[in-house]
Amino acid sequence: MDLKSKLRHVMDFPKEGIDFIDITTVLQDAESFKDALTQMQEKLKGFGDFDLFVGPESRGFIFGSPLAILENKGFIPIRKKGKLPYKTISVEYQLEYGVDILEIHEDAISEGQRVVIVDDLLATGGTTKSNIDLVEKLGGKVVGILFFIELSFLEGRKKIEGYNVDSVITF
Amino acid sequence: MDLKSKLRHVMDFPKEGIDFIDITTVLQDAESFKDALTQMQEKLKGFGDFDLFVGPESRGFIFGSPLAILENKGFIPIRKKGKLPYKTISVEYQLEYGVDILEIHEDAISEGQRVVIVDDLLATGGTTKSNIDLVEKLGGKVVGILFFIELSFLEGRKKIEGYNVDSVITF
Repeated sequence: MDLKSKLRHVMDFPKEGIDFIDITTVLQDAESFKDALTQMQEKLKGFGDFDLFVGPESRGFIFGSPLAILENKGFIPIRKKGKLPYKTISVEYQLEYGVDILEIHEDAISEGQRVVIVDDLLATGGTTKSNIDLVEKLGGKVVGILFFIELSFLEGRKKIEGYNVDSVITF
Repeated sequence: MDLKSKLRHVMDFPKEGIDFIDITTVLQDAESFKDALTQMQEKLKGFGDFDLFVGPESRGFIFGSPLAILENKGFIPIRKKGKLPYKTISVEYQLEYGVDILEIHEDAISEGQRVVIVDDLLATGGTTKSNIDLVEKLGGKVVGILFFIELSFLEGRKKIEGYNVDSVITF
């Protein structure tokens, strides 16, 4: 299926000049959404064996959670500051203006567990770098990072060099 | 499987006196997470035929998205104000102090489509009532509302009376 044609482009969101790729048109069509997951499952084969999926709030949940069910793995949420109820570790994450903080439960990953990070979009790679840092602080090994969409012109792969990265759709 | 025993109770989160039910201990264990979804699928049978799942940000995504894949339906996200890129409709939603705003894309649901709303938790029912309002504003019919957990002592069902409601775990 040509999933690229199912995506909606929203101009000037969230600000002028941005061509925002809207995934909701894929999600709302059962056949397209299923195909997106099937294509992501194919890509997982390139990462070898692993134990857990990790996905960041919120859109990482939309792909990471069903992949965990389909692949019979656990799912670990990374969330914004103050959302996870138990003891957490955190990283600061640079935004265009100011900083944001991401957290993971301190017992979410055991030393040596092999982890695949899943998110909807690779843009500049800033969020993904933070996700890697959290996994590695807990002793996990990031064996792969999988995106539904990659905006290759933003060169996010440079920020996560040395990791095994794949994506279903590239712009 | 006794999923109730897999949940973690975190006292005094997000504030003193609250016994917060942490679902992440279920999510991170592949067998438990799969069982949670299987039990939710069983409950769906009581709702009859339907077209789409709707889930609110963020934890509604964790259960709604895999259910959509397993049941071969589309998934519609409801999000906080300013997160959805295309044209939206919105509802105000009363918090303990102040209001919050939830949005849905205006073309997410067609007139007459049958919808199941999914979320992790039924507490006071305020968020769920807002979700119902958004679906109905678009002409959708809410045929069922499914939760992983229900805090029955908060009597959230009173706020959504007349709807078909079910949950896997009740406290």
